[in-house]
Amino acid sequence: MIIIGEKINATNKGVAAAISNRDAAYIQGLARGQAEAGADYIDVNAGTGQSAEQEISDMKWLIDTVSEAVDKPLCIDSSNPQVLVAAIDYYRNPGVLVNSVNAEPHKLDAVGSAVAGRGLSVIALLTGEAGIPRTVEERMAAAQHIADRLTTLGVKQESIYFDPLALPISVDVNQGMVTLKTIEKLKDNYPMAKTAVGISNISYGLPCRRLVNRAFLLMAAAAGLDVAILDPTDAGMMSAVRAANLLGGKDSACRGFIRAYRQGQLTE
Amino acid sequence: MIIIGEKINATNKGVAAAISNRDAAYIQGLARGQAEAGADYIDVNAGTGQSAEQEISDMKWLIDTVSEAVDKPLCIDSSNPQVLVAAIDYYRNPGVLVNSVNAEPHKLDAVGSAVAGRGLSVIALLTGEAGIPRTVEERMAAAQHIADRLTTLGVKQESIYFDPLALPISVDVNQGMVTLKTIEKLKDNYPMAKTAVGISNISYGLPCRRLVNRAFLLMAAAAGLDVAILDPTDAGMMSAVRAANLLGGKDSACRGFIRAYRQGQLTE
Repeated sequence: MIIIGEKINATNKGVAAAISNRDAAYIQGLARGQAEAGADYIDVNAGTGQSAEQEISDMKWLIDTVSEAVDKPLCIDSSNPQVLVAAIDYYRNPGVLVNSVNAEPHKLDAVGSAVAGRGLSVIALLTGEAGIPRTVEERMAAAQHIADRLTTLGVKQESIYFDPLALPISVDVNQGMVTLKTIEKLKDNYPMAKTAVGISNISYGLPCRRLVNRAFLLMAAAAGLDVAILDPTDAGMMSAVRAANLLGGKDSACRGFIRAYRQGQLTE
Repeated sequence: MIIIGEKINATNKGVAAAISNRDAAYIQGLARGQAEAGADYIDVNAGTGQSAEQEISDMKWLIDTVSEAVDKPLCIDSSNPQVLVAAIDYYRNPGVLVNSVNAEPHKLDAVGSAVAGRGLSVIALLTGEAGIPRTVEERMAAAQHIADRLTTLGVKQESIYFDPLALPISVDVNQGMVTLKTIEKLKDNYPMAKTAVGISNISYGLPCRRLVNRAFLLMAAAAGLDVAILDPTDAGMMSAVRAANLLGGKDSACRGFIRAYRQGQLTE
């Protein structure tokens, strides 16, 4: 399982304030904590509804600040394609993951072209202008549309990370299975592509969210999930990730699991 | 998820001593504890390598003792078909689950006939005289053989609970995926049958076994597992079961999960 650390996101008030105040120590602390806890990518999202110009400026500062602190590649995250294109141009790291496009044509075309031009990988949310589809079939239709357009633009299938999205189960009890079934179908239909999902949305509105999130991570791993977007400093969650790798046959001779145990990283 | 409480098993020394001493209070305490914690069936296994005659006598005492304490149906458990047939004849509860047959002909025929005659359900281990197969294909071949013979004897497919078995991942790191893939294939090939598995064997030889067991339960649930054989008094495990039901869309309006939370039954 590839882990994207989600904590540097301006929807969090402390992060927004640190970006606004150019508080590098705060942001670098979040970056280092996530890298040490096992993140493979550090997500950076500067979006607070400010102007595109301001968000680009904030994003460039985040890129510099986080790159200075950790060796991990960044996951450049914005809902504004203009910000993503500017950030791709500025960051110039071939390991970057771009987060995200969806089925909306202007996003697909602008970001897809920038990604294709540099041979980068991109997260593609299975949603369009009408919001997040409720059914597996509608999400797969969005995937087909996105895959067709991105490959036409020159993005390879293996560079596409489909995010089937998770809607809160407190709103619709079927949404856990909708996401799990969509992951399975994505793996069947696009065997070279990867699947990625933000774990915590599923538990919105429920008690014991950490329990539900860990369970969802494990069930998604069984369905074939490749990439999880989560808080890697949650030791219980990272213990679940390590157990998923172990049970998924991805941990040769159980070495990673036993090393994590010896280092006191597993919470039982 | 249907839960079989595994604790009344004579391979446990305390249980063996209680059976030998006819200590009803001890056995009934285990039965009540499991029923209160959420077991749907109470497994009873009296086997300690004694004579068949003695095991039948011990099993009859267990049946009487446990039935007196709890309303849950029993899962009559022995590796000796003679004991199972005698116990079926003695217990005469139409809700009993018989545990187990495998691909060995003498077991299949003796127990299959008794089960068919009374319209009971039976757990079928996907193993034969050569032990537990290492691959999905060999386990599915055992399933085919068992299904063919049991249906010939008059057992309905919906009365067969296939147990794909779990070998320790510490011995072969692929065995988690072998069991998960076998569950998926069983659901595809035998849509009316159920799947059942003992959870704890997977973690034998590893540290943090409870973490591994919970993770395996959740991944097996995602693969389609219907029945888990486990210790329901392990609150962390039962929290995972409740999360699996929730995320699997089996908990209408999240009521079971929220009730368990309010009753303090969830461990985060």
